[in-house]
Amino acid sequence: MKTPVLAINFKVYNTSFGQKAVDIAKAGEKAAKEYGIEVIVIPPATELRRIASEVSIPVFAQHADPYDFGAYTGWLPIAALKEMNIKGVLVNHSEHRLRLDEIVAIVEAAKKHGLETLVCADTPIAAAAVAAIKPTALAVEPPELIGTGIAVSKAKPEIITNTVQKVREVNKDVIILTGAGISTAEDVEAAIRLGTAGVLVASAIMKAQNPEKVINDMAMAAAKAYRK
Amino acid sequence: MKTPVLAINFKVYNTSFGQKAVDIAKAGEKAAKEYGIEVIVIPPATELRRIASEVSIPVFAQHADPYDFGAYTGWLPIAALKEMNIKGVLVNHSEHRLRLDEIVAIVEAAKKHGLETLVCADTPIAAAAVAAIKPTALAVEPPELIGTGIAVSKAKPEIITNTVQKVREVNKDVIILTGAGISTAEDVEAAIRLGTAGVLVASAIMKAQNPEKVINDMAMAAAKAYRK
Amino acid sequence: MKTPVLAINFKVYNTSFGQKAVDIAKAGEKAAKEYGIEVIVIPPATELRRIASEVSIPVFAQHADPYDFGAYTGWLPIAALKEMNIKGVLVNHSEHRLRLDEIVAIVEAAKKHGLETLVCADTPIAAAAVAAIKPTALAVEPPELIGTGIAVSKAKPEIITNTVQKVREVNKDVIILTGAGISTAEDVEAAIRLGTAGVLVASAIMKAQNPEKVINDMAMAAAKAYRK
Amino acid sequence: MKTPVLAINFKVYNTSFGQKAVDIAKAGEKAAKEYGIEVIVIPPATELRRIASEVSIPVFAQHADPYDFGAYTGWLPIAALKEMNIKGVLVNHSEHRLRLDEIVAIVEAAKKHGLETLVCADTPIAAAAVAAIKPTALAVEPPELIGTGIAVSKAKPEIITNTVQKVREVNKDVIILTGAGISTAEDVEAAIRLGTAGVLVASAIMKAQNPEKVINDMAMAAAKAYRK
Repeated sequence: MKTPVLAINFKVYNTSFGQKAVDIAKAGEKAAKEYGIEVIVIPPATELRRIASEVSIPVFAQHADPYDFGAYTGWLPIAALKEMNIKGVLVNHSEHRLRLDEIVAIVEAAKKHGLETLVCADTPIAAAAVAAIKPTALAVEPPELIGTGIAVSKAKPEIITNTVQKVREVNKDVIILTGAGISTAEDVEAAIRLGTAGVLVASAIMKAQNPEKVINDMAMAAAKAYRK
Repeated sequence: MKTPVLAINFKVYNTSFGQKAVDIAKAGEKAAKEYGIEVIVIPPATELRRIASEVSIPVFAQHADPYDFGAYTGWLPIAALKEMNIKGVLVNHSEHRLRLDEIVAIVEAAKKHGLETLVCADTPIAAAAVAAIKPTALAVEPPELIGTGIAVSKAKPEIITNTVQKVREVNKDVIILTGAGISTAEDVEAAIRLGTAGVLVASAIMKAQNPEKVINDMAMAAAKAYRK
Repeated sequence: MKTPVLAINFKVYNTSFGQKAVDIAKAGEKAAKEYGIEVIVIPPATELRRIASEVSIPVFAQHADPYDFGAYTGWLPIAALKEMNIKGVLVNHSEHRLRLDEIVAIVEAAKKHGLETLVCADTPIAAAAVAAIKPTALAVEPPELIGTGIAVSKAKPEIITNTVQKVREVNKDVIILTGAGISTAEDVEAAIRLGTAGVLVASAIMKAQNPEKVINDMAMAAAKAYRK
Repeated sequence: MKTPVLAINFKVYNTSFGQKAVDIAKAGEKAAKEYGIEVIVIPPATELRRIASEVSIPVFAQHADPYDFGAYTGWLPIAALKEMNIKGVLVNHSEHRLRLDEIVAIVEAAKKHGLETLVCADTPIAAAAVAAIKPTALAVEPPELIGTGIAVSKAKPEIITNTVQKVREVNKDVIILTGAGISTAEDVEAAIRLGTAGVLVASAIMKAQNPEKVINDMAMAAAKAYRK
């Protein structure tokens, strides 16, 4: 994973499926090229194969299970992702919390299959625990910023800086993203200024009137803030 | 859902993905036409869109969540299936057990979105409970037949007939399938002779040397047994 | 289980533990004798042994697991309840939903160990499914009445009567309780008048200034309404 | 928590309830006094109150939920443990795995209520993650030692020493116990010699012909090995 990162969690909005999802992924690809940053698109399971065949930027799954191929009806084995050109997996999102042993197993299975991992954590302590598991990246979702409408750019900066510090005590290498409170390009800039290497963003893009413009603006802000 | 039914649970074997999965779905389509029976293919989430675009027989999901479009990272809302031409959803498989309230919510959501449901149950009592929820179909997986290598054609017939009787006390309309102990065309014939309207089968097809032949033989057996 | 029933779910309020819990259980015992009805007390796991040794009315667990004695750290095997004189178990409360196969296993295990079961269900369809599992009793918790402050005595009566009808189509014997919307003795009277055999009640007693008086009034109302 | 530690997980065997459980707890109390070590007894929820009133050594719960008092039917709020003189809680046992966010919430809630925590982890990486959450103690259960009949005293010593090293990189203070492969006093001695501060043991005591003797021998071995 390169830095800075603009990771787009498509969730499962109506814009997350079909042609609209492809268009958003292509806008991500365009912005990645234009600004030289890492744009990661994270569509629903049903869209993975199609989107991975249409864009050259990294496509991640929103979840995968730490299984090899086998008798696991309704689950998505990590082993299956490689063939369809998926580069990584998002894990433990606040809408999809996992057991500790599952997170460990998924990160280990992903490593075995050559996939990257982006693991979410809601508190500084949970982030430190995740850091000890050594995923490729982690996204901190401070409760103060989740769904409260508080922009990271306006929240007290110590929310993010404290988390970064706790993570770094445990792991010097993991890429840290800000995973909540990102509504605008200004928030992306703030996230990077506060010591994280980018953002994990969802509704600000997926529910936008003009997702392409939001992606472009956020990518530009990320590139600019990261150079400083 | 027409009867008799040959429902093929692809699970997540290596044959369940990519071109192999498409080939198996097409073999199902061919057999459905040739023998005039209902062949349902149930591939992994990542293959749903592609397979639904390549075959005209019903494609079911292996699982779906009782959500509308929204912020549900890593889940698959039933609301998203319709647009990609998915006809139904398999629910509560022994490898994917659900809470009772979830099963009810999924069956209700499926009805609202015009999708069919095939709900698994492991015991006669669980099957009766499922029957009360009024799904389109249910598959009985008697523990005596799951993973024990006991063919339904050789097991004591009362295992199936007792289950059918308990289900019918609660629901006269639900389509009943035999969901375990199906390895051969002879087992399909036995399942129908014992009063169910077909089978839910997985490894006997997905792990076969020649899946097309197994599908053909099972479809032929189903058509023949059902006419009697 | 006799009828009519006043089942008191202690939940885990601060009044649910220690001497206060014993006092409430004794008030239930007193009311049971005075009005000739079945009062069931359902305290937290930590209070089961003590309360069962201090009152002669039935004591139920708020949950139990379908296990025999064994290596199940942190779970409560049904097999352990009998020795401490527990008479039954509450299952699938809206705060403790279970998988369908777990509900079946618990009801079966309870029968094997000579314990009664009281299974909750939130919708008429879920109630019918539960009825098919043949527990001793079921409590219907219509979403219209849960936590909305709508008293069953003031809600449209068809909410309860429709549920009773759906349950009776599946099971003529199960005792049906009203499990939501019970705040006053008037609500108990309404629950019985609408065709259920009593109530499952929690906060109206556990959070009352004078729990003994609420228990007495509800028991009196139940006895009176049931005689009619 | 003092060291060395002999923590006895009662699980839910038939010896884990009633008078037998009290006798085992009293044997633990006797050994604690005789050898000057920390013996912790961890009985089922139903036995907590009684055992905590009969012994002066620390009594832990086998599980608790990160709740305050409230409407949580069938769960055990940490808030309720203090009043009944429980000193701590066992968390994330291999038979009771929890979500990462739950483990964090339980450890935080325990701290708030003045309770200690003993968190299990199955792999060195999971143990490091747990260490980052800063519980009072953690028990490592190397898969190589769980249920395989391999005594830690005979397994390759690096299994334990590697885990200890990974934990210490993250947390210098947490008390580390060996949580698998403990059948004899010799295993206790090995666990301490390999750098852990004691053991978490279950069946070797709970299923013994003479639990008092096993407790005595293990406590003596712990005291002796720890002094060296």
